[in-house]
Amino acid sequence: MPRVRAHLLTIGDELLAGDIVDRHKAWLGEQCRKLGIEVVRATTVRDREDEIVAAMRTAGDEVELCLVSGGLGPTTDDLTVQSAAKAAGVELERHADIVARLEAFFSRYGRELVEANLKQADLPVGATVLDNPIGTAPGFALSVGGCRLYSMPGVPRELHLMFREQVVPRLRERFELQARARRVYRAVGRGESSLQQVIGPVLDAARERSPGLANMFVHYRARYPEVQLLLEGTPGEAGDGARATAEELAGLDDALREAIGPAVYSIGPGDGGPELAQALVEALSARGLTVVTAESCTGGGVGQAITSVAGSSAVFLGGVIAYANAVKEGQLGVPAEALAEHGAVSEPVARAMAEGARERLGADLGISTTGIAGPGGGSKDKPVGTVDVAIASAAGTTYERLRVLGKRETVRKATVMWALKLAWDHLELGVRVDDSSS
Amino acid sequence: MPRVRAHLLTIGDELLAGDIVDRHKAWLGEQCRKLGIEVVRATTVRDREDEIVAAMRTAGDEVELCLVSGGLGPTTDDLTVQSAAKAAGVELERHADIVARLEAFFSRYGRELVEANLKQADLPVGATVLDNPIGTAPGFALSVGGCRLYSMPGVPRELHLMFREQVVPRLRERFELQARARRVYRAVGRGESSLQQVIGPVLDAARERSPGLANMFVHYRARYPEVQLLLEGTPGEAGDGARATAEELAGLDDALREAIGPAVYSIGPGDGGPELAQALVEALSARGLTVVTAESCTGGGVGQAITSVAGSSAVFLGGVIAYANAVKEGQLGVPAEALAEHGAVSEPVARAMAEGARERLGADLGISTTGIAGPGGGSKDKPVGTVDVAIASAAGTTYERLRVLGKRETVRKATVMWALKLAWDHLELGVRVDDSSS
Repeated sequence: MPRVRAHLLTIGDELLAGDIVDRHKAWLGEQCRKLGIEVVRATTVRDREDEIVAAMRTAGDEVELCLVSGGLGPTTDDLTVQSAAKAAGVELERHADIVARLEAFFSRYGRELVEANLKQADLPVGATVLDNPIGTAPGFALSVGGCRLYSMPGVPRELHLMFREQVVPRLRERFELQARARRVYRAVGRGESSLQQVIGPVLDAARERSPGLANMFVHYRARYPEVQLLLEGTPGEAGDGARATAEELAGLDDALREAIGPAVYSIGPGDGGPELAQALVEALSARGLTVVTAESCTGGGVGQAITSVAGSSAVFLGGVIAYANAVKEGQLGVPAEALAEHGAVSEPVARAMAEGARERLGADLGISTTGIAGPGGGSKDKPVGTVDVAIASAAGTTYERLRVLGKRETVRKATVMWALKLAWDHLELGVRVDDSSS
Repeated sequence: MPRVRAHLLTIGDELLAGDIVDRHKAWLGEQCRKLGIEVVRATTVRDREDEIVAAMRTAGDEVELCLVSGGLGPTTDDLTVQSAAKAAGVELERHADIVARLEAFFSRYGRELVEANLKQADLPVGATVLDNPIGTAPGFALSVGGCRLYSMPGVPRELHLMFREQVVPRLRERFELQARARRVYRAVGRGESSLQQVIGPVLDAARERSPGLANMFVHYRARYPEVQLLLEGTPGEAGDGARATAEELAGLDDALREAIGPAVYSIGPGDGGPELAQALVEALSARGLTVVTAESCTGGGVGQAITSVAGSSAVFLGGVIAYANAVKEGQLGVPAEALAEHGAVSEPVARAMAEGARERLGADLGISTTGIAGPGGGSKDKPVGTVDVAIASAAGTTYERLRVLGKRETVRKATVMWALKLAWDHLELGVRVDDSSS
């Protein structure tokens, strides 16, 4: 099978000035991996024509595929179209159908179409238009040297949609692609090195079973407090070409689940698989249960995470953000004595918050968080990162004290994850196994 | 003054497979910008000797400085040292002092020093050692062609420390560095192309004023619904070397503020400058005002944004996440008739939510959001993206209906930003001007 090697090219001064983190490189890299495309280089250049042209020509000399993002906007520092034309040695031409679409787009939203916008209707001669149904900038495909170049907008949702709907079908037509099998185990409550240690013997035994499993690629991803274990079927360095199949990888589930223990909450092919919030909403929904929140240190983050899931309104009724003690008392019925005696970050207060939210808002489950996110507010007994989480239901209330390491945002994010995982455990939801194909 | 142009080179398969987001590129880019080093390209390559050598040679041909991270570990896929030696055309030599340090390090932690670890004592002939006091991998500096190359570990805290303590002093010795002035204007409520059009004449007039302003670099950043305008003092393409000073850029404030209109909320040098939530917390804090939230479609996101700011407890009391109508009625006192007659996404409900939260939680300001985030729930009259925001204070309640484009997460994020901006406008906070030096 012919190898398809790719360059990724991201364009924009802001990517090199440290103003934003380049997530497109990782996203496109992941998509390529799933499709079986070998990304051999990623380049980021500034909004300068000669620098963009040089990077495109290098791709034209070295690889079969170049995925480009950015520089398609209407402003003078958007230079991708003219650079691609120059790299390919062609002129620009204005597309009447794109002009018509731009006019319709602007008129629909009552905005004025200015000359700068019309620039987005110009594409290199010979380019194939890649539709952008949710933005003004069309993408395009063009051959530069021996390389097929796909240029997409830098706006994340436009890039993602265009890649999936416009680029992938064309890649499948043009190249023979074979995706790698993969299996992802998600766990909250175990460190990366501890995970590696407990599963080591399981993986060693698996490698004896078949040439494909012997070649599998093992990777750990730490997304504190979540750790993910990734297994991937690759042809390996040995060169025998054997790849583990999805079935072979899934055959390791039982042994790995046992080794990892109760920390694991989800197993599946992992390509866009459920985050913890989504898994929780699905599980509650399937059981006809409702949930409410009572948040202090997370300030709305638990509610925000739950409601990030489409369809969460079936299970999430609402919550109280109880930052000030007066709100804990007034809206959640936390006893003033508990606050005075134990402080806002304490087991009695965490329990009263979860129970108060559950009763006052009338839900099956109440989730509370109260903690010291920092940078201020820490003490010797309760340093920054001390967090109390409680989960209340008809069966009773469970409580856990966490010691989270890190800065304010880390503490808050980790607390949200922990709260969701403890709700998961409280309901004894077990391990979610997704056996859909990837 | 000689320009110092740099390449960034990050090394590692995992960066191209989408397993991790490359934060080193952004971090090194930001450090360079602050030092006045012009980063013209960032390249990421796999752990393959020929690919690393090629990227280093390109840097040797094209720029004065190359900052490298990754590939310094003890395993067989760590190839940076041998690649740099090959790119420079020199051999490796073992450093006895590094061997001694490694032996001491391993003995301190009771770990066995294996042959693979000794590999970390080998550096290219002629290389300068860069100490790594917190890890086993030393870095090194080496000349490749016309370029000075600094190779650092991929572990973030080791990279950051080595760059600050080992690399920066050497850069200051070797190059004449001068940071660029910059000015950032942040606006919510104007599109990128509309912004460009209104400020075009102001910038054209400014360019006539001085050679420095003629050379300034203009950049737009879209963070929907926020748009940022960046002006930067650069030597320009003309080559006369004139750079706009911080004072010259600040001299454009009045004209730009007038041109952009009420959308602009903050002006400043922009290095870690305030996000909208932080600016709002600071403004409320300075005025001794408190704020609460009543959130439906954002599900806690407004509270989460406000409480992301350290010290927000001085102004933020809490809020109610009123996802279900029963919670809107029970916790916020929204009249059942208003919900029945106008629906949950309506002006009367948005107003009642903001006023109810303000009264019941006892704050100066109440912020409410109710809308259709999608993907379901839209109708012809109220399509997905229809959002109502109200701000209640003693002076009365203001209300605005938004039409937000995009998917669920985009609608929710944009609504959070809009809600904060409308609170800003409601309080007539004007434009926050930060005149601290960058």
